[in-house]
Amino acid sequence: MRFTSEQRLDDGVLEREFTLGEIPGILWTPASASAPVPLILISPPPLGLRKMYPRLAGRARYYAAKYGFAAATIELPGSGDRPRWAAAEQARADLRRAVEAGEPVGDEIIDALVLPLVEKSVPEWQATLDALLSLPVIGGPVGYEGGVISIGVRLAVVEPRISAAGFFAGSFVPRSMFEEARQVSIPLQVLLQWDDEGNDRQAALDLFDAFGSKEKTLHANMGGHTGVPQFELDAGARFFARHLK
Amino acid sequence: MRFTSEQRLDDGVLEREFTLGEIPGILWTPASASAPVPLILISPPPLGLRKMYPRLAGRARYYAAKYGFAAATIELPGSGDRPRWAAAEQARADLRRAVEAGEPVGDEIIDALVLPLVEKSVPEWQATLDALLSLPVIGGPVGYEGGVISIGVRLAVVEPRISAAGFFAGSFVPRSMFEEARQVSIPLQVLLQWDDEGNDRQAALDLFDAFGSKEKTLHANMGGHTGVPQFELDAGARFFARHLK
Repeated sequence: MRFTSEQRLDDGVLEREFTLGEIPGILWTPASASAPVPLILISPPPLGLRKMYPRLAGRARYYAAKYGFAAATIELPGSGDRPRWAAAEQARADLRRAVEAGEPVGDEIIDALVLPLVEKSVPEWQATLDALLSLPVIGGPVGYEGGVISIGVRLAVVEPRISAAGFFAGSFVPRSMFEEARQVSIPLQVLLQWDDEGNDRQAALDLFDAFGSKEKTLHANMGGHTGVPQFELDAGARFFARHLK
Repeated sequence: MRFTSEQRLDDGVLEREFTLGEIPGILWTPASASAPVPLILISPPPLGLRKMYPRLAGRARYYAAKYGFAAATIELPGSGDRPRWAAAEQARADLRRAVEAGEPVGDEIIDALVLPLVEKSVPEWQATLDALLSLPVIGGPVGYEGGVISIGVRLAVVEPRISAAGFFAGSFVPRSMFEEARQVSIPLQVLLQWDDEGNDRQAALDLFDAFGSKEKTLHANMGGHTGVPQFELDAGARFFARHLK
């Protein structure tokens, strides 16, 4: 992990860009931390860190400044300036075509779109976690939130260092993920936008039902995909504050 | 409104029992309030104030001590020491019989059980609100929470002084209430116990969907009717803190 820039922000948060091999990322830490702090991994949607920076930095700085957590994000494979791969481009084109034609999005398209992304990104998140946990400022425990829900589901199953997760039930989910969801046992808080134009409400409720976790909470709010109310930021932080001690 | 007892509790909350005509109730206020405070009406389940006292007082004292709200509750018609009426006793017996026989609870039973309770208790809550708002310590705005959800739905529709409501989707709801729910327009936070033994999950989701409010949030948690997690108390307080200003 190599830090490429460092900036002390006016809310007392230290923002550092880094690269881990080919993967660019950003780390936010409370500059005044005197003991190692818990860590939130903030997984971005597959739209590129540059585009998502305001939203990601807003969440991370809130966690760092108000709750004393570190927070980090990395560019997903195939997003931002990272190399695309042909099968993903094809799946994206198929998805666009189906949506524009008003057709249902078939399982093959969803599998082709999501499963390779899960396969590629989960080990990257694990390598990032290795590197972050070796920094003196970061002690753990570790929470995970956001992004493509299937990546979070797989990580929650395979990565024992993640203690709690906040998911956003707002993306296409391969059928096989429902089986994996049953194996998730960490505390979850799941956001659902009730009128999400790109997401089937019943499928989201079924996925929530499938999670094996004994403590799981669904927060459903009105509005479309991008309409998550501002107050859910603090509700998410409080969820992590309960579990990352 | 006549105060019958007064007690200053060790968390700095003043607890006063009162009667309003034949209706007994309890008012909790932050003893140190220097300006008029917002008010939360805490509607009890129809099990009697004496039995429900620990839970009601726990909520009310939390609101008063931590958030500076006043909170009040009253005995429902037909609960505690208040006179029963024959039709309600009959409906209760019919309900018990259906539940014990494992039969579905018919619409006639639910209507007979709930609708007269709504008719009787809504004007009582309104008279209580008149009396409470005339006290110098209470300024408003007013929130409502708890109890029999149908009473809350009707109150939210007919009582413009209620600015926000927290409902518990945990009791039998007459079909006609779904129509009334569409007329509710105040901000809502709705609790749902995912495995509530006495409550149909799909009906609860349908009722949440029916509410006309632009801002409504569903908090679904695991477990049965009485298993609402402790952290929802503070989540409810924060919901009121956002809206009662």
